Amino acid sequence: MSEPPTPRPGRSRFTSELQVRPDDIDMNQHVHASRYFDYVLAARYDQMARCYGMSMEAFTEIGYGWFTKASHLEYKRALRLGERFTVTTWIEEFHKDGVRVHFEICRADPRKLACSGWCDYTLVRLDTGRAVPLPEDIVAKYAI
Amino acid sequence: MSEPPTPRPGRSRFTSELQVRPDDIDMNQHVHASRYFDYVLAARYDQMARCYGMSMEAFTEIGYGWFTKASHLEYKRALRLGERFTVTTWIEEFHKDGVRVHFEICRADPRKLACSGWCDYTLVRLDTGRAVPLPEDIVAKYAI
Amino acid sequence: MSEPPTPRPGRSRFTSELQVRPDDIDMNQHVHASRYFDYVLAARYDQMARCYGMSMEAFTEIGYGWFTKASHLEYKRALRLGERFTVTTWIEEFHKDGVRVHFEICRADPRKLACSGWCDYTLVRLDTGRAVPLPEDIVAKYAI
Amino acid sequence: MSEPPTPRPGRSRFTSELQVRPDDIDMNQHVHASRYFDYVLAARYDQMARCYGMSMEAFTEIGYGWFTKASHLEYKRALRLGERFTVTTWIEEFHKDGVRVHFEICRADPRKLACSGWCDYTLVRLDTGRAVPLPEDIVAKYAI
Repeated sequence: MSEPPTPRPGRSRFTSELQVRPDDIDMNQHVHASRYFDYVLAARYDQMARCYGMSMEAFTEIGYGWFTKASHLEYKRALRLGERFTVTTWIEEFHKDGVRVHFEICRADPRKLACSGWCDYTLVRLDTGRAVPLPEDIVAKYAI
Repeated sequence: MSEPPTPRPGRSRFTSELQVRPDDIDMNQHVHASRYFDYVLAARYDQMARCYGMSMEAFTEIGYGWFTKASHLEYKRALRLGERFTVTTWIEEFHKDGVRVHFEICRADPRKLACSGWCDYTLVRLDTGRAVPLPEDIVAKYAI
Repeated sequence: MSEPPTPRPGRSRFTSELQVRPDDIDMNQHVHASRYFDYVLAARYDQMARCYGMSMEAFTEIGYGWFTKASHLEYKRALRLGERFTVTTWIEEFHKDGVRVHFEICRADPRKLACSGWCDYTLVRLDTGRAVPLPEDIVAKYAI
Repeated sequence: MSEPPTPRPGRSRFTSELQVRPDDIDMNQHVHASRYFDYVLAARYDQMARCYGMSMEAFTEIGYGWFTKASHLEYKRALRLGERFTVTTWIEEFHKDGVRVHFEICRADPRKLACSGWCDYTLVRLDTGRAVPLPEDIVAKYAI
Protein backbone atom coordinates (compact mmCIF):
# COMPACT_ATOMS: atom_id res chain seq x y z
CA MET A 1 0.00 0.00 0.00
CA SER A 2 1.51 3.31 -1.08
CA GLU A 3 0.04 5.39 1.79
CA PRO A 4 2.77 7.91 2.72
CA PRO A 5 4.17 7.75 6.26
CA THR A 6 3.83 11.50 6.82
CA PRO A 7 0.69 12.77 8.51
CA ARG A 8 -2.06 13.68 6.09
CA PRO A 9 -4.01 16.88 6.68
CA GLY A 10 -6.91 14.69 7.78
CA ARG A 11 -9.43 13.94 5.13
CA SER A 12 -12.98 13.98 6.35
CA ARG A 13 -14.88 10.88 7.34
CA PHE A 14 -18.58 10.80 6.52
CA THR A 15 -21.21 8.43 7.83
CA SER A 16 -24.47 7.12 6.37
CA GLU A 17 -27.11 5.06 8.14
CA LEU A 18 -28.69 2.06 6.47
CA GLN A 19 -30.72 -0.99 7.40
CA VAL A 20 -30.48 -4.66 6.41
CA ARG A 21 -33.15 -5.75 3.94
CA PRO A 22 -34.63 -9.29 3.89
CA ASP A 23 -33.07 -10.26 0.58
CA ASP A 24 -29.62 -9.44 2.02
CA ILE A 25 -29.85 -12.45 4.34
CA ASP A 26 -28.21 -15.73 3.35
CA MET A 27 -28.75 -19.32 4.42
CA ASN A 28 -26.74 -18.74 7.61
CA GLN A 29 -29.12 -15.96 8.75
CA HIS A 30 -26.35 -13.44 8.08
CA VAL A 31 -26.00 -10.68 5.54
CA HIS A 32 -24.50 -12.34 2.45
CA ALA A 33 -20.87 -11.30 2.10
CA SER A 34 -21.42 -9.66 -1.29
CA ARG A 35 -23.89 -7.13 0.11
CA TYR A 36 -21.34 -5.17 2.14
CA PHE A 37 -19.89 -4.03 -1.15
CA ASP A 38 -23.22 -2.46 -2.13
CA TYR A 39 -23.64 -0.95 1.32
CA VAL A 40 -20.38 0.94 0.74
CA LEU A 41 -21.54 2.10 -2.68
CA ALA A 42 -24.89 3.24 -1.26
CA ALA A 43 -23.05 5.22 1.41
CA ARG A 44 -20.74 6.80 -1.16
CA TYR A 45 -23.66 7.88 -3.37
CA ASP A 46 -25.37 9.40 -0.33
CA GLN A 47 -22.16 11.17 0.74
CA MET A 48 -21.27 12.37 -2.77
CA ALA A 49 -24.53 14.31 -2.86
CA ARG A 50 -24.74 15.28 0.80
CA CYS A 51 -21.10 15.81 1.84
CA TYR A 52 -18.89 16.34 -1.23
CA GLY A 53 -21.33 18.52 -3.14
CA MET A 54 -21.34 16.50 -6.36
CA SER A 55 -23.90 13.73 -6.73
CA MET A 56 -23.46 10.62 -8.84
CA GLU A 57 -26.11 12.07 -11.14
CA ALA A 58 -23.99 15.21 -11.55
CA PHE A 59 -21.07 13.06 -12.69
CA THR A 60 -23.31 11.22 -15.14
CA GLU A 61 -24.62 14.46 -16.59
CA ILE A 62 -21.12 15.63 -17.55
CA GLY A 63 -20.29 12.24 -19.04
CA TYR A 64 -18.29 10.70 -16.22
CA GLY A 65 -18.78 7.51 -14.27
CA TRP A 66 -16.91 5.69 -11.51
CA PHE A 67 -15.96 2.07 -12.17
CA THR A 68 -14.73 -0.23 -9.45
CA LYS A 69 -11.15 -1.34 -10.02
CA ALA A 70 -10.53 -3.36 -6.88
CA SER A 71 -12.20 -4.14 -3.57
CA HIS A 72 -10.90 -5.57 -0.33
CA LEU A 73 -13.24 -6.58 2.48
CA GLU A 74 -12.55 -8.04 5.92
CA TYR A 75 -15.54 -9.49 7.70
CA LYS A 76 -15.59 -9.20 11.49
CA ARG A 77 -19.14 -9.78 12.72
CA ALA A 78 -22.08 -10.59 10.52
CA LEU A 79 -25.03 -8.23 10.37
CA ARG A 80 -28.45 -9.82 10.79
CA LEU A 81 -32.04 -9.33 9.73
CA GLY A 82 -33.45 -5.86 10.38
CA GLU A 83 -30.28 -4.49 11.97
CA ARG A 84 -29.44 -0.85 11.53
CA PHE A 85 -25.84 -0.01 10.74
CA THR A 86 -23.57 2.83 9.75
CA VAL A 87 -21.13 3.05 6.87
CA THR A 88 -18.26 5.47 7.40
CA THR A 89 -16.06 6.21 4.38
CA TRP A 90 -13.13 8.44 3.62
CA ILE A 91 -10.68 8.98 0.79
CA GLU A 92 -7.42 7.43 1.87
CA GLU A 93 -5.42 7.99 -1.34
CA PHE A 94 -5.69 9.95 -4.55
CA HIS A 95 -4.48 8.10 -7.63
CA LYS A 96 -3.89 9.59 -11.06
CA ASP A 97 -7.31 8.53 -12.35
CA GLY A 98 -9.18 7.57 -9.21
CA VAL A 99 -9.40 7.29 -5.47
CA ARG A 100 -8.97 4.66 -2.81
CA VAL A 101 -11.90 4.82 -0.41
CA HIS A 102 -11.61 3.16 2.98
CA PHE A 103 -14.71 2.15 4.89
CA GLU A 104 -15.96 0.84 8.21
CA ILE A 105 -19.39 -0.75 8.54
CA CYS A 106 -20.61 -0.88 12.14
CA ARG A 107 -23.70 -2.40 13.69
CA ALA A 108 -25.58 0.47 15.30
CA ASP A 109 -26.63 -0.92 18.66
CA PRO A 110 -24.58 -2.13 20.38
CA ARG A 111 -21.94 -0.54 18.24
CA LYS A 112 -19.58 -3.18 16.81
CA LEU A 113 -17.38 -3.29 13.73
CA ALA A 114 -19.01 -5.59 11.17
CA CYS A 115 -16.78 -5.15 8.12
CA SER A 116 -13.93 -2.91 7.02
CA GLY A 117 -11.81 -2.55 3.92
CA TRP A 118 -11.32 -0.38 0.86
CA CYS A 119 -12.36 0.05 -2.75
CA ASP A 120 -10.46 1.59 -5.64
CA TYR A 121 -12.75 3.56 -7.91
CA THR A 122 -11.58 4.81 -11.31
CA LEU A 123 -13.04 7.83 -13.08
CA VAL A 124 -14.06 6.96 -16.63
CA ARG A 125 -15.59 8.73 -19.58
CA LEU A 126 -18.93 6.99 -20.11
CA ASP A 127 -18.75 7.31 -23.92
CA THR A 128 -15.41 5.52 -24.20
CA GLY A 129 -15.32 3.54 -20.97
CA ARG A 130 -11.73 4.69 -20.54
CA ALA A 131 -10.08 6.02 -17.39
CA VAL A 132 -9.38 9.75 -17.30
CA PRO A 133 -7.08 11.80 -15.06
CA LEU A 134 -8.99 13.34 -12.17
CA PRO A 135 -9.95 16.92 -13.11
CA GLU A 136 -8.71 19.61 -10.72
CA ASP A 137 -12.18 20.67 -9.65
CA ILE A 138 -13.10 17.13 -8.71
CA VAL A 139 -9.89 16.71 -6.73
CA ALA A 140 -10.75 19.95 -4.95
CA LYS A 141 -14.23 18.75 -4.04
CA TYR A 142 -12.88 15.43 -2.82
CA ALA A 143 -9.88 16.83 -0.91
CA ILE A 144 -11.98 18.02 2.01
CA MET B 1 -60.82 -10.83 -5.63
CA SER B 2 -63.09 -11.75 -2.74
CA GLU B 3 -62.92 -8.35 -1.01
CA PRO B 4 -66.48 -7.59 0.17
CA PRO B 5 -68.11 -4.39 -1.13
CA THR B 6 -69.30 -3.32 2.31
CA PRO B 7 -67.05 -1.02 4.31
CA ARG B 8 -64.57 -2.87 6.45
CA PRO B 9 -64.00 -1.69 10.00
CA GLY B 10 -60.82 -0.19 8.72
CA ARG B 11 -57.69 -2.19 9.22
CA SER B 12 -54.71 0.00 9.91
CA ARG B 13 -52.27 1.08 7.22
CA PHE B 14 -48.66 1.41 8.24
CA THR B 15 -45.84 3.12 6.39
CA SER B 16 -42.09 2.54 6.28
CA GLU B 17 -39.47 4.72 4.62
CA LEU B 18 -36.70 3.20 2.54
CA GLN B 19 -34.15 4.28 -0.05
CA VAL B 20 -33.04 2.78 -3.35
CA ARG B 21 -29.62 1.10 -3.20
CA PRO B 22 -27.21 1.06 -6.15
CA ASP B 23 -27.51 -2.67 -6.76
CA ASP B 24 -31.29 -2.26 -7.16
CA ILE B 25 -30.76 -0.41 -10.43
CA ASP B 26 -31.03 -2.27 -13.73
CA MET B 27 -29.72 -1.60 -17.20
CA ASN B 28 -32.56 0.90 -17.85
CA GLN B 29 -31.48 3.05 -14.86
CA HIS B 30 -34.63 1.94 -13.04
CA VAL B 31 -35.13 -0.19 -9.98
CA HIS B 32 -35.26 -3.79 -11.23
CA ALA B 33 -38.83 -5.06 -11.09
CA SER B 34 -37.96 -7.86 -8.68
CA ARG B 35 -36.79 -5.44 -5.97
CA TYR B 36 -40.24 -4.04 -5.20
CA PHE B 37 -41.09 -7.44 -3.79
CA ASP B 38 -38.25 -7.15 -1.27
CA TYR B 39 -39.17 -3.55 -0.46
CA VAL B 40 -42.61 -4.83 0.63
CA LEU B 41 -41.03 -7.55 2.74
CA ALA B 42 -38.63 -5.06 4.35
CA ALA B 43 -41.58 -2.82 5.20
CA ARG B 44 -43.55 -5.73 6.64
CA TYR B 45 -40.63 -6.78 8.87
CA ASP B 46 -40.28 -3.21 10.08
CA GLN B 47 -44.01 -2.92 10.72
CA MET B 48 -44.32 -6.33 12.38
CA ALA B 49 -41.90 -5.18 15.06
CA ARG B 50 -42.90 -1.54 15.25
CA CYS B 51 -46.67 -1.58 14.60
CA TYR B 52 -48.09 -5.07 15.21
CA GLY B 53 -46.03 -5.85 18.30
CA MET B 54 -44.60 -9.14 17.07
CA SER B 55 -41.34 -9.10 15.18
CA MET B 56 -40.27 -11.65 12.58
CA GLU B 57 -37.67 -12.82 15.12
CA ALA B 58 -40.48 -13.42 17.64
CA PHE B 59 -42.24 -15.66 15.12
CA THR B 60 -39.01 -17.55 14.48
CA GLU B 61 -38.42 -18.09 18.20
CA ILE B 62 -41.74 -19.88 18.62
CA GLY B 63 -41.13 -22.00 15.54
CA TYR B 64 -43.21 -20.15 12.98
CA GLY B 65 -42.29 -18.60 9.65
CA TRP B 66 -44.13 -16.80 6.88
CA PHE B 67 -43.78 -18.21 3.37
CA THR B 68 -44.90 -16.31 0.29
CA LYS B 69 -47.73 -18.09 -1.52
CA ALA B 70 -48.49 -15.57 -4.24
CA SER B 71 -47.54 -12.06 -5.28
CA HIS B 72 -49.10 -9.58 -7.65
CA LEU B 73 -47.36 -6.36 -8.62
CA GLU B 74 -48.42 -3.51 -10.91
CA TYR B 75 -45.68 -1.12 -11.92
CA LYS B 76 -46.66 2.52 -12.45
CA ARG B 77 -43.52 4.65 -12.35
CA ALA B 78 -40.02 3.33 -11.93
CA LEU B 79 -37.98 4.40 -8.94
CA ARG B 80 -34.45 5.61 -9.67
CA LEU B 81 -31.03 5.76 -8.09
CA GLY B 82 -30.92 7.24 -4.62
CA GLU B 83 -34.64 7.99 -4.44
CA ARG B 84 -36.41 7.81 -1.11
CA PHE B 85 -39.77 6.11 -1.04
CA THR B 86 -42.48 4.88 1.29
CA VAL B 87 -44.06 1.46 1.51
CA THR B 88 -47.57 1.42 2.96
CA THR B 89 -49.06 -1.98 3.75
CA TRP B 90 -52.24 -3.28 5.31
CA ILE B 91 -53.96 -6.62 5.79
CA GLU B 92 -56.76 -6.78 3.28
CA GLU B 93 -57.96 -10.33 3.99
CA PHE B 94 -57.49 -13.02 6.60
CA HIS B 95 -57.29 -16.54 5.21
CA LYS B 96 -57.43 -19.76 7.24
CA ASP B 97 -53.66 -20.08 7.33
CA GLY B 98 -52.42 -16.70 6.24
CA VAL B 99 -53.06 -13.13 5.23
CA ARG B 100 -53.34 -11.11 2.05
CA VAL B 101 -51.28 -7.94 2.43
CA HIS B 102 -51.89 -5.06 0.06
CA PHE B 103 -49.22 -2.45 -0.53
CA GLU B 104 -48.50 0.87 -2.16
CA ILE B 105 -44.96 2.00 -2.88
CA CYS B 106 -44.70 5.75 -3.47
CA ARG B 107 -41.78 7.92 -4.47
CA ALA B 108 -41.31 10.42 -1.65
CA ASP B 109 -40.76 13.72 -3.42
CA PRO B 110 -42.71 14.56 -5.45
CA ARG B 111 -45.09 11.97 -4.14
CA LYS B 112 -46.12 9.55 -6.90
CA LEU B 113 -47.34 5.97 -6.90
CA ALA B 114 -44.51 3.71 -8.11
CA CYS B 115 -45.92 0.22 -7.60
CA SER B 116 -48.96 -1.37 -5.97
CA GLY B 117 -50.25 -4.89 -5.48
CA TRP B 118 -50.58 -7.61 -2.90
CA CYS B 119 -48.84 -10.65 -1.46
CA ASP B 120 -50.34 -13.75 0.14
CA TYR B 121 -48.25 -14.94 3.06
CA THR B 122 -48.85 -18.33 4.67
CA LEU B 123 -47.96 -19.14 8.27
CA VAL B 124 -45.86 -22.31 8.47
CA ARG B 125 -44.25 -24.39 11.17
CA LEU B 126 -40.52 -24.13 10.47
CA ASP B 127 -39.85 -27.74 11.56
CA THR B 128 -42.31 -29.26 9.07
CA GLY B 129 -42.60 -26.51 6.48
CA ARG B 130 -46.38 -27.02 6.57
CA ALA B 131 -49.07 -24.36 6.76
CA VAL B 132 -50.85 -23.99 10.10
CA PRO B 133 -54.15 -22.28 10.97
CA LEU B 134 -53.58 -18.76 12.28
CA PRO B 135 -53.53 -18.91 16.10
CA GLU B 136 -56.07 -16.66 17.81
CA ASP B 137 -53.47 -14.47 19.46
CA ILE B 138 -51.78 -13.76 16.15
CA VAL B 139 -55.11 -12.91 14.52
CA ALA B 140 -55.74 -10.53 17.42
CA LYS B 141 -52.40 -8.80 16.94
CA TYR B 142 -52.96 -8.51 13.20
CA ALA B 143 -56.60 -7.40 13.36
CA ILE B 144 -55.78 -3.85 14.39
CA MET C 1 -55.20 -6.48 -30.43
CA SER C 2 -56.76 -8.29 -27.53
CA GLU C 3 -56.67 -12.01 -26.97
CA PRO C 4 -59.08 -13.66 -29.43
CA PRO C 5 -61.78 -15.89 -27.94
CA THR C 6 -61.21 -18.63 -30.51
CA PRO C 7 -58.69 -21.35 -29.76
CA ARG C 8 -55.22 -20.29 -30.69
CA PRO C 9 -53.08 -22.57 -32.83
CA GLY C 10 -50.81 -23.03 -29.87
CA ARG C 11 -48.02 -20.57 -29.48
CA SER C 12 -44.66 -22.18 -28.92
CA ARG C 13 -43.31 -22.89 -25.48
CA PHE C 14 -39.58 -22.53 -24.98
CA THR C 15 -37.47 -23.78 -22.11
CA SER C 16 -34.23 -22.55 -20.56
CA GLU C 17 -32.14 -24.31 -17.92
CA LEU C 18 -30.72 -22.42 -14.98
CA GLN C 19 -29.24 -23.11 -11.57
CA VAL C 20 -29.80 -21.56 -8.15
CA ARG C 21 -26.95 -19.31 -7.00
CA PRO C 22 -25.95 -18.93 -3.33
CA ASP C 23 -27.12 -15.34 -3.03
CA ASP C 24 -30.61 -16.43 -4.15
CA ILE C 25 -31.09 -18.29 -0.87
CA ASP C 26 -32.97 -16.62 1.98
CA MET C 27 -33.03 -17.18 5.72
CA ASN C 28 -35.40 -20.15 5.30
CA GLN C 29 -32.88 -21.98 3.06
CA HIS C 30 -35.19 -21.36 0.10
CA VAL C 31 -34.82 -19.24 -2.98
CA HIS C 32 -36.06 -15.78 -2.02
CA ALA C 33 -39.45 -15.14 -3.59
CA SER C 34 -38.21 -12.13 -5.58
CA ARG C 35 -35.67 -14.20 -7.52
CA TYR C 36 -38.23 -16.17 -9.53
CA PHE C 37 -39.04 -12.94 -11.30
CA ASP C 38 -35.43 -12.62 -12.47
CA TYR C 39 -35.32 -16.30 -13.44
CA VAL C 40 -38.21 -15.60 -15.85
CA LEU C 41 -36.43 -12.57 -17.27
CA ALA C 42 -33.20 -14.55 -17.71
CA ALA C 43 -35.14 -17.24 -19.57
CA ARG C 44 -36.86 -14.69 -21.79
CA TYR C 45 -33.53 -13.04 -22.71
CA ASP C 46 -32.10 -16.46 -23.55
CA GLN C 47 -35.17 -17.37 -25.59
CA MET C 48 -35.39 -14.01 -27.37
CA ALA C 49 -31.95 -14.63 -28.84
CA ARG C 50 -32.15 -18.38 -29.26
CA CYS C 51 -35.81 -19.03 -30.16
CA TYR C 52 -37.46 -15.82 -31.40
CA GLY C 53 -34.53 -14.58 -33.45
CA MET C 54 -34.30 -11.14 -31.88
CA SER C 55 -32.07 -10.67 -28.86
CA MET C 56 -32.58 -8.06 -26.15
CA GLU C 57 -29.44 -6.37 -27.49
CA ALA C 58 -31.09 -6.18 -30.94
CA PHE C 59 -34.05 -4.38 -29.40
CA THR C 60 -31.73 -1.98 -27.61
CA GLU C 61 -29.83 -1.21 -30.80
CA ILE C 62 -32.96 -0.01 -32.57
CA GLY C 63 -34.00 2.07 -29.58
CA TYR C 64 -36.56 -0.20 -27.97
CA GLY C 65 -36.76 -1.69 -24.52
CA TRP C 66 -39.22 -3.88 -22.62
CA PHE C 67 -40.53 -2.55 -19.31
CA THR C 68 -42.42 -4.71 -16.86
CA LYS C 69 -46.00 -3.53 -16.38
CA ALA C 70 -47.31 -6.25 -14.08
CA SER C 71 -46.24 -9.56 -12.62
CA HIS C 72 -48.16 -12.36 -10.97
CA LEU C 73 -46.40 -15.27 -9.27
CA GLU C 74 -47.76 -18.33 -7.49
CA TYR C 75 -45.26 -20.23 -5.39
CA LYS C 76 -45.72 -24.01 -5.15
CA ARG C 77 -42.48 -25.56 -3.94
CA ALA C 78 -39.39 -23.64 -2.99
CA LEU C 79 -36.17 -24.22 -4.89
CA ARG C 80 -33.08 -24.82 -2.79
CA LEU C 81 -29.34 -24.31 -2.90
CA GLY C 82 -27.62 -25.62 -5.99
CA GLU C 83 -30.76 -27.02 -7.59
CA ARG C 84 -31.08 -27.04 -11.34
CA PHE C 85 -34.40 -25.94 -12.78
CA THR C 86 -36.13 -25.12 -16.03
CA VAL C 87 -38.07 -22.02 -16.99
CA THR C 88 -40.67 -22.55 -19.70
CA THR C 89 -42.30 -19.43 -21.14
CA TRP C 90 -44.79 -18.65 -23.86
CA ILE C 91 -46.73 -15.65 -25.11
CA GLU C 92 -50.28 -16.06 -23.91
CA GLU C 93 -51.69 -12.75 -25.18
CA PHE C 94 -50.70 -9.95 -27.48
CA HIS C 95 -51.70 -6.49 -26.27
CA LYS C 96 -51.59 -3.28 -28.29
CA ASP C 97 -48.19 -2.29 -26.93
CA GLY C 98 -46.90 -5.44 -25.31
CA VAL C 99 -47.27 -9.10 -24.50
CA ARG C 100 -48.41 -11.25 -21.62
CA VAL C 101 -45.86 -13.99 -21.02
CA HIS C 102 -46.84 -17.02 -18.98
CA PHE C 103 -44.20 -19.14 -17.28
CA GLU C 104 -43.62 -22.35 -15.39
CA ILE C 105 -40.51 -22.86 -13.29
CA CYS C 106 -39.85 -26.52 -12.50
CA ARG C 107 -37.23 -28.19 -10.36
CA ALA C 108 -35.26 -30.46 -12.69
CA ASP C 109 -34.89 -33.65 -10.71
CA PRO C 110 -37.29 -34.92 -9.58
CA ARG C 111 -39.39 -32.73 -11.82
CA LYS C 112 -41.82 -30.63 -9.78
CA LEU C 113 -43.54 -27.32 -10.39
CA ALA C 114 -41.86 -24.65 -8.25
CA CYS C 115 -43.55 -21.44 -9.40
CA SER C 116 -45.93 -20.36 -12.16
CA GLY C 117 -47.50 -17.10 -13.25
CA TRP C 118 -47.27 -14.39 -15.85
CA CYS C 119 -45.66 -11.04 -16.60
CA ASP C 120 -46.93 -8.20 -18.77
CA TYR C 121 -44.10 -6.55 -20.67
CA THR C 122 -44.60 -3.26 -22.52
CA LEU C 123 -42.52 -2.20 -25.49
CA VAL C 124 -41.11 1.30 -24.98
CA ARG C 125 -38.97 3.72 -26.90
CA LEU C 126 -35.83 4.10 -24.77
CA ASP C 127 -35.42 7.80 -25.64
CA THR C 128 -38.88 8.77 -24.37
CA GLY C 129 -39.69 5.91 -22.01
CA ARG C 130 -43.14 5.77 -23.61
CA ALA C 131 -45.04 2.69 -24.74
CA VAL C 132 -45.26 2.13 -28.50
CA PRO C 133 -47.59 -0.10 -30.54
CA LEU C 134 -45.94 -3.41 -31.38
CA PRO C 135 -44.43 -3.15 -34.88
CA GLU C 136 -45.66 -5.76 -37.36
CA ASP C 137 -42.27 -7.40 -37.76
CA ILE C 138 -41.93 -7.90 -34.03
CA VAL C 139 -45.44 -9.37 -33.81
CA ALA C 140 -44.45 -11.72 -36.63
CA LYS C 141 -41.31 -12.85 -34.82
CA TYR C 142 -43.24 -13.35 -31.58
CA ALA C 143 -46.29 -15.06 -33.13
CA ILE C 144 -44.54 -18.38 -33.60
CA MET D 1 -1.05 -26.03 9.46
CA SER D 2 0.39 -23.00 7.76
CA GLU D 3 1.34 -22.82 4.13
CA PRO D 4 4.63 -24.71 3.68
CA PRO D 5 7.50 -22.72 2.14
CA THR D 6 8.46 -25.56 -0.21
CA PRO D 7 6.96 -25.68 -3.69
CA ARG D 8 3.60 -27.37 -3.72
CA PRO D 9 2.91 -30.06 -6.27
CA GLY D 10 0.24 -27.89 -7.79
CA ARG D 11 -3.19 -28.04 -6.27
CA SER D 12 -5.93 -28.72 -8.75
CA ARG D 13 -7.82 -25.97 -10.52
CA PHE D 14 -11.48 -26.57 -11.21
CA THR D 15 -13.77 -24.67 -13.53
CA SER D 16 -17.52 -23.99 -13.52
CA GLU D 17 -19.56 -22.38 -16.27
CA LEU D 18 -22.16 -19.74 -15.47
CA GLN D 19 -24.15 -17.07 -17.23
CA VAL D 20 -24.96 -13.45 -16.36
CA ARG D 21 -28.54 -12.92 -15.19
CA PRO D 22 -30.50 -9.70 -15.87
CA ASP D 23 -30.58 -8.58 -12.25
CA ASP D 24 -26.76 -8.75 -12.18
CA ILE D 25 -26.56 -5.75 -14.51
CA ASP D 26 -26.06 -2.28 -13.08
CA MET D 27 -26.74 1.20 -14.40
CA ASN D 28 -23.56 1.11 -16.51
CA GLN D 29 -24.79 -2.02 -18.38
CA HIS D 30 -22.10 -4.03 -16.59
CA VAL D 31 -22.32 -6.77 -14.02
CA HIS D 32 -22.47 -4.99 -10.66
CA ALA D 33 -19.14 -5.38 -8.87
CA SER D 34 -20.70 -7.22 -5.93
CA ARG D 35 -21.93 -10.10 -8.10
CA TYR D 36 -18.48 -11.49 -8.87
CA PHE D 37 -18.28 -12.47 -5.24
CA ASP D 38 -21.40 -14.64 -5.59
CA TYR D 39 -20.14 -16.09 -8.87
CA VAL D 40 -17.10 -17.39 -6.98
CA LEU D 41 -19.30 -18.86 -4.26
CA ALA D 42 -21.58 -20.52 -6.83
CA ALA D 43 -18.52 -22.05 -8.49
CA ARG D 44 -17.16 -23.29 -5.16
CA TYR D 45 -20.48 -24.93 -4.24
CA ASP D 46 -20.56 -26.62 -7.65
CA GLN D 47 -16.95 -27.75 -7.29
CA MET D 48 -17.31 -28.90 -3.69
CA ALA D 49 -19.94 -31.41 -4.80
CA ARG D 50 -18.52 -32.26 -8.22
CA CYS D 51 -14.73 -32.10 -7.73
CA TYR D 52 -13.87 -32.34 -4.03
CA GLY D 53 -16.44 -34.99 -3.14
CA MET D 54 -18.04 -33.12 -0.27
CA SER D 55 -20.98 -30.86 -1.03
CA MET D 56 -21.97 -27.80 0.97
CA GLU D 57 -25.04 -29.78 2.08
CA ALA D 58 -22.71 -32.52 3.41
CA PHE D 59 -20.90 -29.93 5.52
CA THR D 60 -24.21 -28.61 6.82
CA GLU D 61 -25.40 -32.09 7.75
CA ILE D 62 -22.42 -32.65 10.05
CA GLY D 63 -22.86 -29.23 11.64
CA TYR D 64 -20.21 -27.25 9.78
CA GLY D 65 -20.44 -24.13 7.68
CA TRP D 66 -18.00 -21.91 5.82
CA PHE D 67 -18.02 -18.21 6.68
CA THR D 68 -16.23 -15.62 4.57
CA LYS D 69 -13.40 -13.93 6.47
CA ALA D 70 -11.96 -11.73 3.74
CA SER D 71 -12.31 -11.14 0.04
CA HIS D 72 -10.12 -9.38 -2.48
CA LEU D 73 -11.30 -8.70 -6.02
CA GLU D 74 -9.56 -7.02 -8.96
CA TYR D 75 -11.81 -6.04 -11.84
CA LYS D 76 -10.32 -6.19 -15.33
CA ARG D 77 -13.14 -6.22 -17.89
CA ALA D 78 -16.81 -6.00 -17.04
CA LEU D 79 -19.11 -8.84 -17.98
CA ARG D 80 -22.31 -7.86 -19.76
CA LEU D 81 -25.88 -9.02 -20.20
CA GLY D 82 -26.29 -12.64 -21.21
CA GLU D 83 -22.57 -13.38 -21.38
CA ARG D 84 -21.35 -16.83 -20.52
CA PHE D 85 -18.27 -17.06 -18.35
CA THR D 86 -16.11 -19.50 -16.43
CA VAL D 87 -15.01 -19.39 -12.82
CA THR D 88 -11.78 -21.25 -12.08
CA THR D 89 -10.86 -21.70 -8.43
CA TRP D 90 -8.13 -23.41 -6.49
CA ILE D 91 -6.93 -23.60 -2.90
CA GLU D 92 -3.84 -21.47 -2.65
CA GLU D 93 -3.22 -21.78 1.08
CA PHE D 94 -4.39 -23.88 4.00
CA HIS D 95 -4.82 -21.97 7.24
CA LYS D 96 -5.38 -23.47 10.67
CA ASP D 97 -9.15 -23.07 10.46
CA GLY D 98 -9.78 -22.34 6.82
CA VAL D 99 -8.56 -21.96 3.28
CA ARG D 100 -7.57 -19.20 0.92
CA VAL D 101 -9.25 -19.79 -2.43
CA HIS D 102 -7.93 -17.97 -5.48
CA PHE D 103 -10.15 -17.45 -8.50
CA GLU D 104 -10.20 -16.27 -12.09
CA ILE D 105 -13.44 -15.28 -13.81
CA CYS D 106 -13.15 -15.25 -17.60
CA ARG D 107 -15.58 -14.22 -20.30
CA ALA D 108 -16.14 -17.32 -22.41
CA ASP D 109 -16.02 -16.01 -25.96
CA PRO D 110 -13.71 -14.39 -26.78
CA ARG D 111 -11.87 -15.59 -23.72
CA LYS D 112 -10.77 -12.64 -21.58
CA LEU D 113 -10.03 -12.25 -17.88
CA ALA D 114 -12.91 -10.36 -16.24
CA CYS D 115 -12.02 -10.51 -12.55
CA SER D 116 -9.49 -12.25 -10.33
CA GLY D 117 -8.74 -12.36 -6.64
CA TRP D 118 -9.12 -14.51 -3.57
CA CYS D 119 -11.40 -15.25 -0.64
CA ASP D 120 -10.56 -16.54 2.82
CA TYR D 121 -13.18 -18.96 4.08
CA THR D 122 -13.25 -20.12 7.70
CA LEU D 123 -14.74 -23.41 8.85
CA VAL D 124 -17.21 -22.86 11.69
CA ARG D 125 -19.45 -24.98 13.85
CA LEU D 126 -22.96 -23.86 12.98
CA ASP D 127 -24.24 -24.28 16.54
CA THR D 128 -21.65 -21.95 18.06
CA GLY D 129 -20.64 -19.87 15.06
CA ARG D 130 -17.03 -20.37 16.12
CA ALA D 131 -14.08 -21.28 13.93
CA VAL D 132 -12.77 -24.82 14.25
CA PRO D 133 -9.45 -26.35 13.16
CA LEU D 134 -9.76 -28.09 9.81
CA PRO D 135 -10.36 -31.81 10.45
CA GLU D 136 -7.82 -34.15 8.83
CA ASP D 137 -10.36 -35.77 6.51
CA ILE D 138 -11.45 -32.41 5.16
CA VAL D 139 -7.83 -31.37 4.59
CA ALA D 140 -7.35 -34.65 2.72
CA LYS D 141 -10.33 -34.03 0.48
CA TYR D 142 -9.21 -30.48 -0.22
CA ALA D 143 -5.52 -31.25 -0.75
CA ILE D 144 -6.05 -32.67 -4.23
